[in-house]
Amino acid sequence: MDELPGSMGTSASLALRLGQTIFASASLLFMCLDVEFYSYTAFCYLVTVMGLVVPWSMTLVVVDAYSVFVKCLPRQPKIVIILILGDWVLSYLSLAAACSTASVTDVLLDAGASYCPAKLCSRYQLSAAMAFLSWFLSLASSLFNFWLLPSL
Amino acid sequence: MDELPGSMGTSASLALRLGQTIFASASLLFMCLDVEFYSYTAFCYLVTVMGLVVPWSMTLVVVDAYSVFVKCLPRQPKIVIILILGDWVLSYLSLAAACSTASVTDVLLDAGASYCPAKLCSRYQLSAAMAFLSWFLSLASSLFNFWLLPSL
Repeated sequence: MDELPGSMGTSASLALRLGQTIFASASLLFMCLDVEFYSYTAFCYLVTVMGLVVPWSMTLVVVDAYSVFVKCLPRQPKIVIILILGDWVLSYLSLAAACSTASVTDVLLDAGASYCPAKLCSRYQLSAAMAFLSWFLSLASSLFNFWLLPSL
Repeated sequence: MDELPGSMGTSASLALRLGQTIFASASLLFMCLDVEFYSYTAFCYLVTVMGLVVPWSMTLVVVDAYSVFVKCLPRQPKIVIILILGDWVLSYLSLAAACSTASVTDVLLDAGASYCPAKLCSRYQLSAAMAFLSWFLSLASSLFNFWLLPSL
Protein backbone atom coordinates (compact mmCIF):
# COMPACT_ATOMS: atom_id res chain seq x y z
CA MET A 1 0.00 0.00 0.00
CA ASP A 2 1.54 3.29 -1.03
CA GLU A 3 1.75 6.14 1.45
CA LEU A 4 0.27 9.07 -0.39
CA PRO A 5 0.70 12.12 1.85
CA GLY A 6 -2.67 13.46 2.95
CA SER A 7 -4.64 10.26 2.54
CA MET A 8 -6.22 8.55 5.54
CA GLY A 9 -3.81 7.35 8.21
CA THR A 10 -0.81 9.56 7.33
CA SER A 11 0.63 12.39 9.37
CA ALA A 12 -0.35 14.94 6.68
CA SER A 13 -3.94 13.75 7.01
CA LEU A 14 -3.70 14.16 10.78
CA ALA A 15 -2.52 17.75 10.25
CA LEU A 16 -5.40 18.45 7.82
CA ARG A 17 -7.97 17.03 10.25
CA LEU A 18 -6.51 18.99 13.15
CA GLY A 19 -6.73 22.15 11.04
CA GLN A 20 -10.36 21.43 10.17
CA THR A 21 -11.25 20.86 13.83
CA ILE A 22 -9.49 24.02 14.97
CA PHE A 23 -10.92 26.29 12.26
CA ALA A 24 -14.47 24.90 12.56
CA SER A 25 -14.39 25.25 16.35
CA ALA A 26 -13.05 28.78 16.05
CA SER A 27 -15.81 29.65 13.58
CA LEU A 28 -18.41 28.22 15.96
CA LEU A 29 -16.99 30.04 18.97
CA PHE A 30 -16.74 33.42 17.23
CA MET A 31 -20.40 33.07 16.23
CA CYS A 32 -21.84 31.51 19.38
CA LEU A 33 -20.16 33.56 22.10
CA ASP A 34 -22.47 36.30 20.87
CA VAL A 35 -26.14 35.69 21.67
CA GLU A 36 -27.60 37.58 18.72
CA PHE A 37 -26.95 35.06 15.97
CA TYR A 38 -30.49 33.67 16.10
CA SER A 39 -31.82 36.72 14.28
CA TYR A 40 -30.26 35.79 10.92
CA THR A 41 -30.93 32.53 9.08
CA ALA A 42 -27.44 32.47 7.55
CA PHE A 43 -25.76 32.58 10.97
CA CYS A 44 -27.97 29.75 12.28
CA TYR A 45 -27.03 27.72 9.21
CA LEU A 46 -23.32 28.34 9.83
CA VAL A 47 -23.69 27.17 13.43
CA THR A 48 -25.56 24.02 12.30
CA VAL A 49 -22.98 23.13 9.65
CA MET A 50 -20.00 23.80 11.90
CA GLY A 51 -21.73 21.71 14.56
CA LEU A 52 -21.60 18.84 12.04
CA VAL A 53 -18.02 19.48 10.91
CA VAL A 54 -16.51 19.57 14.41
CA PRO A 55 -17.54 16.03 15.55
CA TRP A 56 -16.75 14.56 12.09
CA SER A 57 -13.24 16.04 12.07
CA MET A 58 -12.59 15.19 15.72
CA THR A 59 -13.47 11.53 15.13
CA LEU A 60 -11.07 11.43 12.20
CA VAL A 61 -8.33 13.17 14.23
CA VAL A 62 -8.60 10.31 16.74
CA VAL A 63 -8.53 7.66 13.99
CA ASP A 64 -5.54 9.27 12.25
CA ALA A 65 -3.65 9.80 15.51
CA TYR A 66 -4.16 6.13 16.40
CA SER A 67 -3.02 5.12 12.93
CA VAL A 68 0.09 7.31 13.04
CA PHE A 69 1.29 6.83 16.61
CA VAL A 70 0.06 3.37 17.65
CA LYS A 71 -0.66 0.98 14.81
CA CYS A 72 -1.36 1.45 11.14
CA LEU A 73 -5.02 0.61 10.54
CA PRO A 74 -5.96 -1.30 7.36
CA ARG A 75 -7.72 0.84 4.75
CA GLN A 76 -10.96 -0.67 3.54
CA PRO A 77 -12.48 0.62 0.29
CA LYS A 78 -15.94 1.01 1.88
CA ILE A 79 -14.59 3.19 4.68
CA VAL A 80 -12.58 5.31 2.24
CA ILE A 81 -15.71 5.84 0.10
CA ILE A 82 -17.69 6.93 3.18
CA LEU A 83 -14.84 9.32 4.09
CA ILE A 84 -14.72 10.82 0.59
CA LEU A 85 -18.50 11.28 0.42
CA GLY A 86 -18.64 12.73 3.93
CA ASP A 87 -15.82 15.19 3.26
CA TRP A 88 -17.33 16.13 -0.06
CA VAL A 89 -20.82 16.83 1.29
CA LEU A 90 -19.40 18.71 4.29
CA SER A 91 -17.18 20.78 2.01
CA TYR A 92 -20.21 21.87 -0.05
CA LEU A 93 -22.16 22.67 3.13
CA SER A 94 -19.22 24.60 4.64
CA LEU A 95 -18.75 26.62 1.47
CA ALA A 96 -22.45 27.50 1.41
CA ALA A 97 -22.38 28.50 5.08
CA ALA A 98 -19.20 30.54 4.71
CA CYS A 99 -20.52 32.42 1.66
CA SER A 100 -23.86 33.15 3.30
CA THR A 101 -22.21 34.45 6.45
CA ALA A 102 -19.73 36.56 4.53
CA SER A 103 -22.40 38.17 2.35
CA VAL A 104 -24.78 38.84 5.25
CA THR A 105 -21.92 40.42 7.20
CA ASP A 106 -21.13 42.56 4.19
CA VAL A 107 -24.74 43.77 3.99
CA LEU A 108 -24.83 44.46 7.73
CA LEU A 109 -21.60 46.48 7.48
CA ASP A 110 -23.16 48.56 4.72
CA ALA A 111 -26.31 49.08 6.75
CA GLY A 112 -24.34 50.93 9.42
CA ALA A 113 -23.51 50.74 13.09
CA SER A 114 -27.10 50.45 14.32
CA TYR A 115 -27.44 46.99 12.76
CA CYS A 116 -23.93 45.89 13.42
CA PRO A 117 -21.64 47.34 16.12
CA ALA A 118 -17.99 47.27 15.04
CA LYS A 119 -17.04 44.65 17.63
CA LEU A 120 -19.78 42.22 16.59
CA CYS A 121 -19.20 42.66 12.88
CA SER A 122 -15.50 41.90 13.03
CA ARG A 123 -16.43 38.76 14.94
CA TYR A 124 -18.82 37.70 12.17
CA GLN A 125 -16.09 38.34 9.60
CA LEU A 126 -13.61 36.22 11.55
CA SER A 127 -16.19 33.47 11.80
CA ALA A 128 -16.75 33.50 8.03
CA ALA A 129 -12.98 33.48 7.37
CA MET A 130 -12.53 30.45 9.66
CA ALA A 131 -15.39 28.67 7.86
CA PHE A 132 -13.68 29.31 4.50
CA LEU A 133 -10.42 27.83 5.83
CA SER A 134 -12.30 24.81 7.16
CA TRP A 135 -13.94 24.37 3.73
CA PHE A 136 -10.58 24.47 2.01
CA LEU A 137 -9.08 21.80 4.28
CA SER A 138 -12.16 19.54 3.89
CA LEU A 139 -11.82 19.82 0.14
CA ALA A 140 -8.11 18.94 0.35
CA SER A 141 -8.85 15.87 2.50
CA SER A 142 -11.55 14.76 0.12
CA LEU A 143 -9.26 15.08 -2.91
CA PHE A 144 -6.34 13.28 -1.28
CA ASN A 145 -8.56 10.36 -0.24
CA PHE A 146 -10.09 10.34 -3.69
CA TRP A 147 -6.63 9.96 -5.23
CA LEU A 148 -6.12 6.91 -3.03
CA LEU A 149 -9.32 5.18 -4.15
CA PRO A 150 -8.12 3.58 -7.43
CA SER A 151 -5.21 1.86 -5.64
CA LEU A 152 -7.54 0.00 -3.28
CA MET B 1 -17.55 3.08 -26.29
CA ASP B 2 -20.48 2.74 -23.89
CA GLU B 3 -23.25 5.28 -24.01
CA LEU B 4 -23.70 6.28 -20.38
CA PRO B 5 -26.74 8.58 -20.24
CA GLY B 6 -25.73 12.07 -19.18
CA SER B 7 -22.12 11.88 -20.30
CA MET B 8 -20.78 14.11 -23.05
CA GLY B 9 -22.42 13.68 -26.45
CA THR B 10 -25.65 11.99 -25.36
CA SER B 11 -29.15 13.42 -25.50
CA ALA B 12 -29.40 13.41 -21.69
CA SER B 13 -26.29 15.57 -21.60
CA LEU B 14 -27.86 17.91 -24.14
CA ALA B 15 -30.91 18.22 -21.87
CA LEU B 16 -28.72 18.94 -18.83
CA ARG B 17 -26.76 21.61 -20.72
CA LEU B 18 -29.93 23.20 -22.05
CA GLY B 19 -31.29 23.30 -18.49
CA GLN B 20 -28.11 24.93 -17.23
CA THR B 21 -28.20 27.57 -19.96
CA ILE B 22 -31.87 28.35 -19.36
CA PHE B 23 -31.63 28.54 -15.56
CA ALA B 24 -28.40 30.56 -15.60
CA SER B 25 -29.82 33.01 -18.15
CA ALA B 26 -33.04 33.31 -16.13
CA SER B 27 -31.03 34.00 -12.98
CA LEU B 28 -29.02 36.65 -14.82
CA LEU B 29 -32.12 38.28 -16.31
CA PHE B 30 -34.04 38.39 -13.04
CA MET B 31 -31.06 40.10 -11.44
CA CYS B 32 -29.97 42.41 -14.26
CA LEU B 33 -33.30 43.78 -15.46
CA ASP B 34 -33.22 45.66 -12.19
CA VAL B 35 -30.59 48.39 -12.07
CA GLU B 36 -30.02 48.34 -8.30
CA PHE B 37 -27.94 45.19 -8.03
CA TYR B 38 -24.66 47.10 -7.94
CA SER B 39 -25.28 48.10 -4.33
CA TYR B 40 -24.71 44.60 -2.93
CA THR B 41 -21.50 42.61 -3.40
CA ALA B 42 -23.35 39.29 -3.36
CA PHE B 43 -25.55 40.30 -6.30
CA CYS B 44 -22.55 41.48 -8.34
CA TYR B 45 -20.88 38.15 -7.63
CA LEU B 46 -23.97 36.26 -8.82
CA VAL B 47 -24.01 38.26 -12.04
CA THR B 48 -20.29 37.56 -12.60
CA VAL B 49 -20.62 33.82 -12.01
CA MET B 50 -23.74 33.45 -14.14
CA GLY B 51 -21.97 35.45 -16.82
CA LEU B 52 -19.36 32.67 -16.81
CA VAL B 53 -21.85 29.79 -16.67
CA VAL B 54 -23.96 30.97 -19.62
CA PRO B 55 -21.23 30.95 -22.32
CA TRP B 56 -19.73 27.71 -20.95
CA SER B 57 -23.08 25.91 -21.08
CA MET B 58 -24.03 27.39 -24.44
CA THR B 59 -20.80 26.15 -26.01
CA LEU B 60 -21.47 22.67 -24.68
CA VAL B 61 -25.09 22.79 -25.89
CA VAL B 62 -23.73 23.36 -29.40
CA VAL B 63 -21.17 20.55 -29.06
CA ASP B 64 -23.75 18.11 -27.70
CA ALA B 65 -26.35 19.04 -30.29
CA TYR B 66 -23.80 18.48 -33.07
CA SER B 67 -22.83 15.16 -31.51
CA VAL B 68 -26.46 14.01 -31.15
CA PHE B 69 -27.98 15.21 -34.41
CA VAL B 70 -25.12 15.30 -36.92
CA LYS B 71 -22.18 13.07 -36.14
CA CYS B 72 -20.95 11.45 -32.94
CA LEU B 73 -17.75 13.24 -31.93
CA PRO B 74 -14.89 11.15 -30.52
CA ARG B 75 -14.36 11.57 -26.79
CA GLN B 76 -10.80 12.41 -25.90
CA PRO B 77 -9.67 11.94 -22.29
CA LYS B 78 -8.07 15.42 -22.18
CA ILE B 79 -11.29 17.12 -23.24
CA VAL B 80 -13.34 15.11 -20.76
CA ILE B 81 -10.96 16.09 -17.95
CA ILE B 82 -11.28 19.77 -18.91
CA LEU B 83 -15.08 19.38 -18.94
CA ILE B 84 -15.12 17.73 -15.51
CA LEU B 85 -12.84 20.36 -13.99
CA GLY B 86 -14.79 23.22 -15.58
CA ASP B 87 -18.14 21.88 -14.41
CA TRP B 88 -16.77 21.21 -10.97
CA VAL B 89 -15.30 24.70 -10.48
CA LEU B 90 -18.41 26.35 -11.92
CA SER B 91 -20.65 24.26 -9.65
CA TYR B 92 -18.71 25.47 -6.59
CA LEU B 93 -18.91 29.07 -7.81
CA SER B 94 -22.64 28.79 -8.58
CA LEU B 95 -23.37 27.31 -5.18
CA ALA B 96 -21.47 30.12 -3.49
CA ALA B 97 -23.29 32.76 -5.55
CA ALA B 98 -26.71 31.20 -4.96
CA CYS B 99 -26.18 30.94 -1.20
CA SER B 100 -24.91 34.50 -0.94
CA THR B 101 -27.85 35.86 -2.92
CA ALA B 102 -30.38 33.83 -0.95
CA SER B 103 -29.02 34.93 2.41
CA VAL B 104 -28.74 38.59 1.43
CA THR B 105 -32.34 38.50 0.14
CA ASP B 106 -33.42 36.96 3.43
CA VAL B 107 -31.75 39.76 5.39
CA LEU B 108 -33.27 42.40 3.10
CA LEU B 109 -36.74 40.87 3.58
CA ASP B 110 -36.27 41.06 7.35
CA ALA B 111 -35.11 44.66 7.13
CA GLY B 112 -38.47 45.70 5.71
CA ALA B 113 -40.01 47.32 2.69
CA SER B 114 -37.79 50.40 2.70
CA TYR B 115 -34.74 48.29 1.81
CA CYS B 116 -36.55 45.88 -0.42
CA PRO B 117 -39.87 46.57 -2.17
CA ALA B 118 -41.96 43.38 -2.51
CA LYS B 119 -41.59 43.28 -6.29
CA LEU B 120 -37.79 43.55 -6.21
CA CYS B 121 -37.36 41.05 -3.41
CA SER B 122 -39.37 38.33 -5.11
CA ARG B 123 -37.20 38.88 -8.16
CA TYR B 124 -34.04 38.39 -6.09
CA GLN B 125 -35.54 35.20 -4.64
CA LEU B 126 -36.34 33.86 -8.11
CA SER B 127 -32.81 34.68 -9.21
CA ALA B 128 -31.34 32.75 -6.27
CA ALA B 129 -33.65 29.78 -6.95
CA MET B 130 -32.59 29.67 -10.60
CA ALA B 131 -28.93 29.81 -9.55
CA PHE B 132 -29.50 26.82 -7.23
CA LEU B 133 -31.08 24.84 -10.08
CA SER B 134 -28.17 25.74 -12.35
CA TRP B 135 -25.74 24.56 -9.64
CA PHE B 136 -27.56 21.25 -9.33
CA LEU B 137 -27.44 20.58 -13.07
CA SER B 138 -23.73 21.52 -13.28
CA LEU B 139 -23.02 19.08 -10.48
CA ALA B 140 -24.98 16.34 -12.29
CA SER B 141 -23.06 16.95 -15.54
CA SER B 142 -19.77 16.86 -13.69
CA LEU B 143 -20.65 13.56 -11.97
CA PHE B 144 -21.87 11.88 -15.16
CA ASN B 145 -18.72 12.87 -17.06
CA PHE B 146 -16.66 11.76 -14.11
CA TRP B 147 -18.26 8.32 -14.26
CA LEU B 148 -17.20 8.13 -17.91
CA LEU B 149 -13.53 8.90 -17.20
CA PRO B 150 -12.29 5.41 -16.17
CA SER B 151 -13.63 3.87 -19.38
CA LEU B 152 -11.49 6.15 -21.58
